[in-house]
Amino acid sequence: MADKLTPEERNTQLNALLGKGWTVQNNRDAINKEFLFKDFNQAFGFMTRTALLADKMDHHPEWFNVYNKVNVTLSSHDINGLSKRDLKLANFMEEVASTTQK
Amino acid sequence: MADKLTPEERNTQLNALLGKGWTVQNNRDAINKEFLFKDFNQAFGFMTRTALLADKMDHHPEWFNVYNKVNVTLSSHDINGLSKRDLKLANFMEEVASTTQK
Repeated sequence: MADKLTPEERNTQLNALLGKGWTVQNNRDAINKEFLFKDFNQAFGFMTRTALLADKMDHHPEWFNVYNKVNVTLSSHDINGLSKRDLKLANFMEEVASTTQK
Repeated sequence: MADKLTPEERNTQLNALLGKGWTVQNNRDAINKEFLFKDFNQAFGFMTRTALLADKMDHHPEWFNVYNKVNVTLSSHDINGLSKRDLKLANFMEEVASTTQK
């Protein structure tokens, strides 16, 4: 697939996300982060903004929410690993979370 | 707490939910159900309608979503078990899911 991450993209763009608290999972080529917000309103607002982009991209997160916590896992099932779509979605989540006043 | 389920409520209202696919968890007094929808739009629409009621009630689900699947667990942490709030939220979810044309 054209959008599978290249080694160079892993060294640059993926590493940038790892520096922001994302981790690569042990058992699969996927990234994970737990976002913490002030309350449910903020957490679900974050999820809603992400959902709109995800559905537009037709690329959806795996995520768990309880109250102010959102635990996100991103991977591209069609290529069985990380793609540019995962980076785009992760970077958008970072932007939304960082501009949410907690 | 006033809203903890009575044995009678367990026999009637809780049992009604068990007949709709909810299960009581083994390791805690909580109920769980996996809802399946046509696509992410439907699944997240279900979550959004539930989120509005949940935040109004100040009673929030634990839930996991990926694409068309929403796995929900309900329990009341403050009473360490099932309450009338869980039944209300579960019944609302049933209503939303059953009126979603899949």
